[in-house]
Amino acid sequence: MSMINSIAPELITSDWLNTDTAISLQSLRGKVVFLHSFQMLCPSCVSHGLPQATAVRNAFPQQELVVLGLHTVFEHHRAMGKEALKAFIHEYKLRFPIAIDMPGQFDGIPLSMQKYGMRGTPSILLIDRQGRIRFHHFGHIDDLKLGCILGQLVTETDDAKTPAITNSNRPDKARDCDEHSCSLS
Amino acid sequence: MSMINSIAPELITSDWLNTDTAISLQSLRGKVVFLHSFQMLCPSCVSHGLPQATAVRNAFPQQELVVLGLHTVFEHHRAMGKEALKAFIHEYKLRFPIAIDMPGQFDGIPLSMQKYGMRGTPSILLIDRQGRIRFHHFGHIDDLKLGCILGQLVTETDDAKTPAITNSNRPDKARDCDEHSCSLS
Amino acid sequence: MSMINSIAPELITSDWLNTDTAISLQSLRGKVVFLHSFQMLCPSCVSHGLPQATAVRNAFPQQELVVLGLHTVFEHHRAMGKEALKAFIHEYKLRFPIAIDMPGQFDGIPLSMQKYGMRGTPSILLIDRQGRIRFHHFGHIDDLKLGCILGQLVTETDDAKTPAITNSNRPDKARDCDEHSCSLS
Amino acid sequence: MSMINSIAPELITSDWLNTDTAISLQSLRGKVVFLHSFQMLCPSCVSHGLPQATAVRNAFPQQELVVLGLHTVFEHHRAMGKEALKAFIHEYKLRFPIAIDMPGQFDGIPLSMQKYGMRGTPSILLIDRQGRIRFHHFGHIDDLKLGCILGQLVTETDDAKTPAITNSNRPDKARDCDEHSCSLS
Repeated sequence: MSMINSIAPELITSDWLNTDTAISLQSLRGKVVFLHSFQMLCPSCVSHGLPQATAVRNAFPQQELVVLGLHTVFEHHRAMGKEALKAFIHEYKLRFPIAIDMPGQFDGIPLSMQKYGMRGTPSILLIDRQGRIRFHHFGHIDDLKLGCILGQLVTETDDAKTPAITNSNRPDKARDCDEHSCSLS
Repeated sequence: MSMINSIAPELITSDWLNTDTAISLQSLRGKVVFLHSFQMLCPSCVSHGLPQATAVRNAFPQQELVVLGLHTVFEHHRAMGKEALKAFIHEYKLRFPIAIDMPGQFDGIPLSMQKYGMRGTPSILLIDRQGRIRFHHFGHIDDLKLGCILGQLVTETDDAKTPAITNSNRPDKARDCDEHSCSLS
Repeated sequence: MSMINSIAPELITSDWLNTDTAISLQSLRGKVVFLHSFQMLCPSCVSHGLPQATAVRNAFPQQELVVLGLHTVFEHHRAMGKEALKAFIHEYKLRFPIAIDMPGQFDGIPLSMQKYGMRGTPSILLIDRQGRIRFHHFGHIDDLKLGCILGQLVTETDDAKTPAITNSNRPDKARDCDEHSCSLS
Repeated sequence: MSMINSIAPELITSDWLNTDTAISLQSLRGKVVFLHSFQMLCPSCVSHGLPQATAVRNAFPQQELVVLGLHTVFEHHRAMGKEALKAFIHEYKLRFPIAIDMPGQFDGIPLSMQKYGMRGTPSILLIDRQGRIRFHHFGHIDDLKLGCILGQLVTETDDAKTPAITNSNRPDKARDCDEHSCSLS
């Protein structure tokens, strides 16, 4: 069951970095939220996803759009703990707030990742000013298409219409899922 | 005097390629128009501008957005005539309609280029569904920022507000004008 | 019949640009010669071949290695005449000597291209200090492999052994011939 | 005191990955050795150095040239332990043998790194067939120049002459040290 157009549930986190306090999605109503789910040892996240998240953060005024990172570790848990993530954030000079997804009890899949039904990393979730999930993408998406959807979300008024180019990024995503992402199974 | 938000004047052309008939901007009301001004021997147009124009054409449904090329030759006129342009279009597999700007009488600057006050190539002009010039950019612009503005224009209703990221691409443009464009002098 | 290891025949040219006098291969004995065959409207030549030729010219001392361009026009002859080539060289800031291959009498294939049995553009010919053809490649070759062969040719003494990595660039070349070159047929 | 042209001292290692047994430089006499020093959280190593090392491994026959990795951790030691490195190697699909540099006793600089006087990561050391250090580079080096030096080393006979292009890569290195490497201090 797709969560598109439904209100984005709050993240379940064990910790936050690059911010003094935990951030609730509720507190960001009125702004577009770019949520980037990654793992520090996911090659495509490092080469494409995180640089793109930083570019998005730099392209938009903070009062219009907020970029949040979500470290959703579902493999190599011991290699991607909080200390390692801190070192990674330092070396890669990541500036936006990053939440650590709450570890799952049994299967190692963290709780926010399960809640949102993410298929792997990198995953992008776009939440509109009314708090609704408007876009959910697994794998790499090119800047032009991402920019177009962001441009729609920062511009539109209350009515939520389907992004003009949603369909056109499917082949893209399919190819990148094979080559450039870490899949849950 | 900036033409931003004023109605885009019709192009003055000597010929059209990749289309059976001349295309008026008037006939495109209701659609967003991406007008890419280039010269076939402008390195930045070949490496960045034209591939970006093709990507825009492929990213949007034709009924939402139309891509037009405008060959604005202001130097090396003999090397960039109609026959040469035809060969160039064939080799580079350009699919969108391309107008040949009407040669200028005295200074060699073609008439549409003069009319729009373009500073050189590549230049991008974005025209909204109401036929108003909404964005005029000289030099390279990155895909994320361009996509954002296009996303706004395909989404917005009648009210024309300033694109959210217009300012943030200034440094970008400044740098690219030095390195990656052909200036009128 | 492969010409590998045989003495490189002199070019048959109609003109030279970026040099005061015609250049004979004979006059370059003692130096390695990097001969880059291109067409100004060949996309892969513009995007890969010519920038690579410039990088080679900048990487080696002139007394060790000489870069020569050869404009081998076998299609769109009217669009790629001397005047157009001059404008192209000016806009793309090419600094090395460029010969214009002598037009063919019947089939439009220029004479040096025929003499060397080139399959299309871009083509790279490497001639050693003794004037022997040591490498002939059609399509794009990556910098690492090209650099390795050049390093061998500038280093070796009189004995001509097969370049260590010749074989490994076959797949590469095969792929690029499909996607990134202009083939004679 | 430069070690260029002196015999490369053996590495001091705490462990090896991607190999059944420890590898001595002595055992590689007769082959060129490409030694790539990196840290798994060094951005330039991940984006440039390691992909280049893999490209070198794929470009040369194993009996001509051997690629060795050396994990020289001088910062964030807890985040870059053996388990983390194993996960990194798995995710980035590194295939060549990788040694873990022996941790330093006091200042955290590992012993092989000290012994070779490396300035940071990435660092490249090239060892010729006679076991002599012939090239030592800190920061990124472009493929063409690296390929040229490798081509010389696989080709040359016993005499060790200075690589033809050593000087030309200095500006390169200088620039990359600012932007694209992790420096010791």
